[in-house]
Amino acid sequence: MGDRLCFTSDYTRGAHPNIIKRLAETNLDQTSGYGTDEISASAKNRIRKACGCERAEVEFLIGGTQTNAVVIDSLLRIYQGVIAAETGHISVHEAGAIEFGGHKVLTLPHHDGKISADDVDRYLTDYYRDESHEHMVMPGMVYLSQPTEYGTLYSKEELQAFRNVCDRYSINLYVDGARLAYALACPENDVTLQDLAQLCDVFYIGGTKCGALFGEAVVVPNPDKIPHFFTIIKQHGALLAKGRLLGIQFDELFRDDLYVHIGEPAIKAAAAIKKALAEKGYRLCFNSPTNQTFCIMEDSALEILGRKAEYGFWEKHDADHTVIRFATDWATSEEETAALIGIL
Amino acid sequence: MGDRLCFTSDYTRGAHPNIIKRLAETNLDQTSGYGTDEISASAKNRIRKACGCERAEVEFLIGGTQTNAVVIDSLLRIYQGVIAAETGHISVHEAGAIEFGGHKVLTLPHHDGKISADDVDRYLTDYYRDESHEHMVMPGMVYLSQPTEYGTLYSKEELQAFRNVCDRYSINLYVDGARLAYALACPENDVTLQDLAQLCDVFYIGGTKCGALFGEAVVVPNPDKIPHFFTIIKQHGALLAKGRLLGIQFDELFRDDLYVHIGEPAIKAAAAIKKALAEKGYRLCFNSPTNQTFCIMEDSALEILGRKAEYGFWEKHDADHTVIRFATDWATSEEETAALIGIL
Amino acid sequence: MGDRLCFTSDYTRGAHPNIIKRLAETNLDQTSGYGTDEISASAKNRIRKACGCERAEVEFLIGGTQTNAVVIDSLLRIYQGVIAAETGHISVHEAGAIEFGGHKVLTLPHHDGKISADDVDRYLTDYYRDESHEHMVMPGMVYLSQPTEYGTLYSKEELQAFRNVCDRYSINLYVDGARLAYALACPENDVTLQDLAQLCDVFYIGGTKCGALFGEAVVVPNPDKIPHFFTIIKQHGALLAKGRLLGIQFDELFRDDLYVHIGEPAIKAAAAIKKALAEKGYRLCFNSPTNQTFCIMEDSALEILGRKAEYGFWEKHDADHTVIRFATDWATSEEETAALIGIL
Amino acid sequence: MGDRLCFTSDYTRGAHPNIIKRLAETNLDQTSGYGTDEISASAKNRIRKACGCERAEVEFLIGGTQTNAVVIDSLLRIYQGVIAAETGHISVHEAGAIEFGGHKVLTLPHHDGKISADDVDRYLTDYYRDESHEHMVMPGMVYLSQPTEYGTLYSKEELQAFRNVCDRYSINLYVDGARLAYALACPENDVTLQDLAQLCDVFYIGGTKCGALFGEAVVVPNPDKIPHFFTIIKQHGALLAKGRLLGIQFDELFRDDLYVHIGEPAIKAAAAIKKALAEKGYRLCFNSPTNQTFCIMEDSALEILGRKAEYGFWEKHDADHTVIRFATDWATSEEETAALIGIL
Repeated sequence: MGDRLCFTSDYTRGAHPNIIKRLAETNLDQTSGYGTDEISASAKNRIRKACGCERAEVEFLIGGTQTNAVVIDSLLRIYQGVIAAETGHISVHEAGAIEFGGHKVLTLPHHDGKISADDVDRYLTDYYRDESHEHMVMPGMVYLSQPTEYGTLYSKEELQAFRNVCDRYSINLYVDGARLAYALACPENDVTLQDLAQLCDVFYIGGTKCGALFGEAVVVPNPDKIPHFFTIIKQHGALLAKGRLLGIQFDELFRDDLYVHIGEPAIKAAAAIKKALAEKGYRLCFNSPTNQTFCIMEDSALEILGRKAEYGFWEKHDADHTVIRFATDWATSEEETAALIGIL
Repeated sequence: MGDRLCFTSDYTRGAHPNIIKRLAETNLDQTSGYGTDEISASAKNRIRKACGCERAEVEFLIGGTQTNAVVIDSLLRIYQGVIAAETGHISVHEAGAIEFGGHKVLTLPHHDGKISADDVDRYLTDYYRDESHEHMVMPGMVYLSQPTEYGTLYSKEELQAFRNVCDRYSINLYVDGARLAYALACPENDVTLQDLAQLCDVFYIGGTKCGALFGEAVVVPNPDKIPHFFTIIKQHGALLAKGRLLGIQFDELFRDDLYVHIGEPAIKAAAAIKKALAEKGYRLCFNSPTNQTFCIMEDSALEILGRKAEYGFWEKHDADHTVIRFATDWATSEEETAALIGIL
Repeated sequence: MGDRLCFTSDYTRGAHPNIIKRLAETNLDQTSGYGTDEISASAKNRIRKACGCERAEVEFLIGGTQTNAVVIDSLLRIYQGVIAAETGHISVHEAGAIEFGGHKVLTLPHHDGKISADDVDRYLTDYYRDESHEHMVMPGMVYLSQPTEYGTLYSKEELQAFRNVCDRYSINLYVDGARLAYALACPENDVTLQDLAQLCDVFYIGGTKCGALFGEAVVVPNPDKIPHFFTIIKQHGALLAKGRLLGIQFDELFRDDLYVHIGEPAIKAAAAIKKALAEKGYRLCFNSPTNQTFCIMEDSALEILGRKAEYGFWEKHDADHTVIRFATDWATSEEETAALIGIL
Repeated sequence: MGDRLCFTSDYTRGAHPNIIKRLAETNLDQTSGYGTDEISASAKNRIRKACGCERAEVEFLIGGTQTNAVVIDSLLRIYQGVIAAETGHISVHEAGAIEFGGHKVLTLPHHDGKISADDVDRYLTDYYRDESHEHMVMPGMVYLSQPTEYGTLYSKEELQAFRNVCDRYSINLYVDGARLAYALACPENDVTLQDLAQLCDVFYIGGTKCGALFGEAVVVPNPDKIPHFFTIIKQHGALLAKGRLLGIQFDELFRDDLYVHIGEPAIKAAAAIKKALAEKGYRLCFNSPTNQTFCIMEDSALEILGRKAEYGFWEKHDADHTVIRFATDWATSEEETAALIGIL
């Protein structure tokens, strides 16, 4: 991407050096396929330990959309749909992968990318009160992302409230952790991996955006929730032949608590960028405490900025303003951040 | 896999060293996502060149089942099915991925893993002659694998015959090249990449079993065949965020004709194993000239063999015999082969 | 339903007497199945004539949800979705039948049950302007209902505007005419069957709610739009073995222009009810000129009304008011209407 | 169909006169929709009584393919397939309706249209013994038709054996009774409605071919087997708005044991035709004791026969012989049968 600074997304680089090193070292070893190897077993154990959940089934998939489709198709019966924020990744940016599996995404209005347990409660109450609800899609689960697509976070208390409403209606709670490392590294966050394992029916720990080349670790605290998960993964074309490649990546990410800290440089960089933007009088949006920073810029200013730095287009704000995004990642250096601030 | 020799499959190891090297070198570079980067563009161009087909659309997917599902869902209309050998990978070992997309696999009996253009012609003739064929699944394409699941090869003449019958009925021809490198490296083979590009509507060049960590390159000689392929890939959860990882692998595999030769050690090793088995009086099956060797062994002999070498179980032959498979790969060494022969 | 008046819906009764008579007369005749009989052929011809479209393919299906699913699955490619009002039948009351076929319903806010061509234009403009639109569901058609679920009507000018925007983006226009007879019988309506045949890619003429026991006639003015429609119908479990039952019904409904006039008693009754409600000071909603009348009532008044007449619950308006619906049909008598007015 | 005799199928005529009479009598009554009316309730109770199963859930659907798709989609989890004879209706003549729902039909070779419990046992044993069975479609149910597509019957003993193997593997047993009345009326049959209710997880009682205009009654002896069946029916476009039409038909068919006897004329007629064919030296096929008679005729003889009678084409037997089918039904008269025999 030439010599411009690059803050377009958190998947522009490869992987944490430990991963590359291990891939090279083990390259010519021969192992069994499909994740039945010993490295994958080790990685799964580390994740179970980090989640405080010895019984959990852990499966490694390749990317986020794939993971969402596989998990949702696994948890729902054919007549059920999934409740999500209208801004949820499954609602907007998965090219209909959920509908391809036969399920409707039942959307709720968002607040800075979030929905509330009360919103869900009201939706479910209305649904069951409607005389014709048997002609409608039955809500079978709630989908949240942590952090959300707008960089915001659910608190432990909020997640507990979702758990309660889900229990009341006997539906499942699923958390998409594509950027989970950036939540875990964030001072505002009070939700740990153990909390997720306690509160969710299923969640996934994102690798692709958090230090891996690719890969997401699905955690099912109570494996009875998804019988024959392996076969569903295969059916969805989501089973990696050389499964150890995923094992290696998560074995490294969960060695010595690496995953819990890997997002810290991103959070520091984002905080510095936010501070600089505010000082320079730009309007920030969505109040994101994680690695994504959104702000409103005049289109004329953007043109100048664009010559020196790449950023993400988010949406038009009005006729001559645009909301843009700066994304930092686990490898964003202090030099890059300083350089960006210098040109804002 | 301990200290036993390992001939269980062709996906036990990592990747060709050039790939690992390039992954390490480019690891911290920042590129755009989803295969829009320059390395992917270079890889696609090398493949177009190798196939003699400048216009071709080339897309990189991650694994074989995924590729088959995406391509078949792309080529068929909802009322159509795919004709395949009853032994075809899509018929047996993809956990229903094709049916998950809504399509029936219309199976024909196989001959050493192959079907013939005449079989297909007869099937189509019968179909259109049947007065109730509008109540049946309309055949919309033919699926072949080269080499087949039994290691056998289609000749150029045979492929031409499939092309002719497909043209006569206006249906598509698709070749699954999961192990294509082992066909290309095989002296018995007369089908080049250019031939495939001329004869098929779509085919894929296998990476996972042929020197890559993972990855398959789909080639669509006439891109109009599959409009909006990118979106279909995304919808199927098959789009890799860091697309350059696939670009790097195929850029290396197609540098200096590497792919065309990478299977040669496997073919040499397989030939030596076949020769040794025949000399020792074992019965070979299926007449495979490629990297898979099938033979019938007494169960008692298998137990002894199993202590020193791992092989693939294929199927029971009779009460006390079993068909087993030895798979070699691009990295099988002369030492390994000699060691295996020594203990047969 | 006992001795209360019944205005709950327009599918509480059987069929127009001519239909029952013809069913009885032809009962023991033997005909070929699946709509290949001569009565079905006659009915299709009458419909083609009424629509001024000799080339049209006409197919008879059984019910509305089934028809919507079959038509939408036929018109869309797998990566496409259908644009509809958030109040559209396919969006809310079909239990996810469209998603079951793999397609997302892309909803737009409604105005009295309607959307506008401008809304669609804006949606499509935004879609194509979005840099990540290839990661989103591609809009492939527009779904309208005439009359809408709220009883409102599209004018010919409005439909022409939809046609224009659909042409501009090369997408299909489909009109659900479940209650079409009540539009055709309505003085405010200026859209004829011929207009629909000229402006739509596909539309259906509702039978179930308009004088038939069951049945909807799908009209495809240009049959090339849906190849192999018969097989798709069979695949969806929507093919009636004794197809002549549908033929008989539509042959009678289109004899001597019956269909164009059959809704008139319903419109007259609805107009009288509306007038009476307004005179008695009730607040009408949605401004429906067709056979559905919506008004807001106090819950205490509803309880009293409910002892003498059945009505449809629509939605809660506020803590102690409810929106209810009175539906009239082709067989609503002046006596029934007068009786209802008497107790309002 | 002109003045030729017509023995092409068992769905050429309308309905039993009692049904037409009741439809006419109730035509202008107003009832609630979707099968919630009192006539439907009465019909369901009669069926429960006839099946000796007070707890059973009974739902009325419209046709056979639709019923098979709805039931199979309801019973299977997404990763499962259905075992059936290769000649089963779901395997051949439903245009891929089962695959459209995402499920593979796992076919077994047939014997006169039947499979055996031993065949199924062997299939399941092999499946679970296969090391790669988790990469294959898991068998989740067995589909039988009674009588079969070849007119043959399962005995009570045979059904019991299926029940046993299904229990052993915890999979479901489903019987398609599209022509069930012709089994019940057949002297060779020893399987009653009560037996089916005891032995099956789900079965359906065919109306379309057995005296109704249309309609099939699904019986679920233990309703817990299919939660939210109503919504699944709606989702599949299989819910009839005026549900009482189905209620009326089955209420009449199950009044005074009509259904158990309605097939008798067909069986008598078929027996007479079989006897005549044998006496005249024609070769009968498949040994069908029910209302379908299959025989081999010379093509030259067929041409002559075809001038006076319509029959069903079944399949080519050899270069100049064809297998044809004579189907009788509940309304076949002795005169028609005598006339056919006269011209054989």
